[in-house]
Order: sequence, then C-alpha cells, then structure tokens
Amino acid sequence: MHILVTNDDGIHAPGLLALAQALRPLGNVTVLAPDRNWSASGHVKTLDRPLRVRPAKLADGSDALTTDGAPSDCVALPLLGLLDRKVDLVVSGINPWANLGHDVTYSGTVTAAMEAAIGGLPGIAVSLNTAPGHQGERDYAPAAEIARRVAVKVMEKGLPRHTLVSVNVPYRPLEDIKGVHITRQGLRVYRDELVRRTDPHGNPYYWIGGEFPDGVPDDGTDFGALAEGYVSITPLQLDMTAYAMMDELRGWEWE
Amino acid sequence: MHILVTNDDGIHAPGLLALAQALRPLGNVTVLAPDRNWSASGHVKTLDRPLRVRPAKLADGSDALTTDGAPSDCVALPLLGLLDRKVDLVVSGINPWANLGHDVTYSGTVTAAMEAAIGGLPGIAVSLNTAPGHQGERDYAPAAEIARRVAVKVMEKGLPRHTLVSVNVPYRPLEDIKGVHITRQGLRVYRDELVRRTDPHGNPYYWIGGEFPDGVPDDGTDFGALAEGYVSITPLQLDMTAYAMMDELRGWEWE
Repeated sequence: MHILVTNDDGIHAPGLLALAQALRPLGNVTVLAPDRNWSASGHVKTLDRPLRVRPAKLADGSDALTTDGAPSDCVALPLLGLLDRKVDLVVSGINPWANLGHDVTYSGTVTAAMEAAIGGLPGIAVSLNTAPGHQGERDYAPAAEIARRVAVKVMEKGLPRHTLVSVNVPYRPLEDIKGVHITRQGLRVYRDELVRRTDPHGNPYYWIGGEFPDGVPDDGTDFGALAEGYVSITPLQLDMTAYAMMDELRGWEWE
Repeated sequence: MHILVTNDDGIHAPGLLALAQALRPLGNVTVLAPDRNWSASGHVKTLDRPLRVRPAKLADGSDALTTDGAPSDCVALPLLGLLDRKVDLVVSGINPWANLGHDVTYSGTVTAAMEAAIGGLPGIAVSLNTAPGHQGERDYAPAAEIARRVAVKVMEKGLPRHTLVSVNVPYRPLEDIKGVHITRQGLRVYRDELVRRTDPHGNPYYWIGGEFPDGVPDDGTDFGALAEGYVSITPLQLDMTAYAMMDELRGWEWE
C-alpha cells in the first residue's frame, strides 16, 4: 500500500507532519507538498510552466518531496509517473480550518483529493474545525488519528470511481469526539464585507473582509455533525449537474 | 437590468469584448475583469491581500473596470457593494476553449459564474468549443449571439437559488448550429503526460504535457451535444455530495 500525503499549506505545515506520521504504520508513505502556502487556491493544474520537484525534510527528520506547483500538481505528478511506485491512496491535510459547505469549491485541501478522484484513485481530505479566531499552535493528534482510521476503512472497502471523502474533525481531545456522522454538504453563510481604504498616495484599494463564515447546522449536514461533536465524513463526487433543473430548462422553448 | 460581465482571460481578451457588446442591448452592462490571464486558476477568492480596481477601456472604446484580483473577485467585489448599482445577472466568458466534464472544477470562467451562484445571483458561463490546436484569432460572434439568447431566457425565467448554467458553443457559423441541448456534465478523459527534462545546469524539471483532453460523447452529455453540432447548456449546482454513497459509508462500522 503506497499512500501519497499532500496538503495546501505547504511542506512545513504541522498538520502535514501529523498526518504523515499517523499514516506511516499503514504502508509506504510518500510526502509531496507545495513549497509555499496555497490556501484558497482552488483547483489548479499547472500546464503553462515547468515544475521543480526537490527533496525536503519534515520536522521529524523524515524524507519528503516539495514542488513549486499547486496542491493538484502534487497529486498529478505522481499519478503521471513521477515516483518509482504507483500510488494507491491520496490523503490531503490536515487543514487547520474546516472545509464545509461551499468551501469545497475553494479548498486546496479538497482539491488535492479531487485530483486523485479525477485520476481514478481514492482521495481523502482531512480538515480540523478550529474555532474562529484561534491563534497559535494546534493539537493535530486527534485529527491525525481519525484520518488514520478513515484511511484504514477506505483501504479495506475502496471508494467508487471518481469519488472522494471530505473529513472534518471537531477540535477537541479524541475521547471527547462522540463518533462519526456521514453527512451531506451543508449551506455555508459567507459574511464577507467590502472594506474600502485609501493608500498613502490617495488611491483607493479594497479588502474582502468580514467575519468568519458561518454555516447552517442542519440535521444531516457537515455543519450539523460538527456542532454536535461528531466527525463529519462527506462523500463527494465530481458531477455538478443540476439534474432537477434539466426538464425545466428543456421547456424554455429554444429554437 | 444590470449585467456584470467578466472572464478569466483578462480585460483585453476578444471574447470578453464580444460578450459585452452582445449583452449591451439587454440592459446596463458593467465589465469588470482581471488585469491578467487567470486560465485554469480554479476557484479563488482573495482574502489575504488588498485588491485594486482601476478604470480601463475595451478595444471598442467603451468603459470597463479591471482588478488585480481573480475571476471570483471580479464577482465578489460587486456583490459586496463595489458598484453604485446592484447586479442582477453575471455572465462570464467567452472562454476561447470549451469547459466540459470535470473541466468545471478547474475553469476560471465557470468559477466566476459559481461565485455568482454562491452569492445568490444567476450566473452564466460561456465557452467556445474551438478545435484542439486552433491558432490565432477566433470569430466570437456566434457564441456571443448564443450568450445573448441564453441571457434573455435567464432574465425572463430566472434560475433556482445557488445554480448556474455552463454554455458551450460549437465553433461554427450561427446558421450551422443545429440548436440547443440541455445536457449533463460528461466524462473528461485527460491525456496528460509527464515530460521530464534537464535544465542547462543538469537539474531535472517537469512539464505536465500530453495531448488535448478528450471526452466521451455520450448521449445527453455536454460532449455529445457539441459532437452533434448543438449548443450544450449544462445546469450546475454547488452540492457535490455523493448521495448514493452515504448508506454504504454508514454501513462501515464506525465506532
């Protein structure tokens, strides 16, 4: 079993190290992660410039690889044969913040697992639901242990082709996590605000600011599971077709 | 009716001009587009740096706005109140290449329309199915006319909340386009290859190369419609939950 571990926060992120360490007992682990932070990078595959891949060391002294490419490139390169050995499973994370609701369309962490799914491999994205405003270090150990357990299940059972799972873990000690809920993608409530400022030269500039996005903790959703202290596991697929709209659109009298 | 026109190829792209010109008869059109090419940028919202918005001119002398932000920012800024007037509809394009199958998760053009949907506005992404290897200028007029017709319908009928439509237009004269098919997202077949090279200093670097991606032109898909000479209109929604997998995952004996 050859597991590729990556993330979008970069090779030096403590969540990546925790994830790699937790998965090592399950098989051969290769870490290939971006050389910088790509948070909120969305789904990017680099076709218009060459990519470098360089050896790196994680903080525990273990060998890793790093690239100037994006999180998706960290998956695309091995899938195209960069490594000597075929990859069986891709695990991405641990993201320091949750990826819930529509976040999945922005998230580099989920994107990496999505690239695995597109390439025909099972993908797992792991995110930690730290409280808004959290500063400083985090304890990634509980989320890493959850990631390990999910990986064991996915290795045993497999995932249908072109699917992935997005795992969000409550930020609390392992013994206080109540269990696992299989959830659907909830509704994110963004609370962005436009902040207008003037630079020292009198010219305007803008920040997209505002409060941390909220969510509707409906029953059965990712938000709902976390609100109740459960791990949220959302199975995702890549077909975004709004099937329910097709008949309506067909009735629009196109000529 | 206030229509926001944007793209991911940048303010000087001819597809943007053709789109803006086609939509002007329908209402008040504001063009706000990135100051550079963001193709294959994915879904990015810029939260970690300030954004500039500057006046610009399109090639026909009309007024426009440009920003150093991403395509999603071009939608997020007006939705947050950048302009004096509320936006009613967002139309993104015209992309010089089709956006089919899984492309929607990579495409900046679709991403801009997705940002509109997240913000509660109807979004339309318009792409032109130019043949692989096409060089030089394109005739955007047929696609612009199709975009105008789709916009008229969307303005008349509306779209359900949190949905958008992705329109792909065959590259042929308007009179040779056979009609419209309402389609589902098809299966993209990527034919990427890893190209290994050595730089003048003896160090390796990599290109993600390979042939233009293919598609399975199944009946009812975006690929199928284009292969038969029809415009493909795919309704999209933002919930990527793999509902069919939920029961299976619940049976995995999580403890």
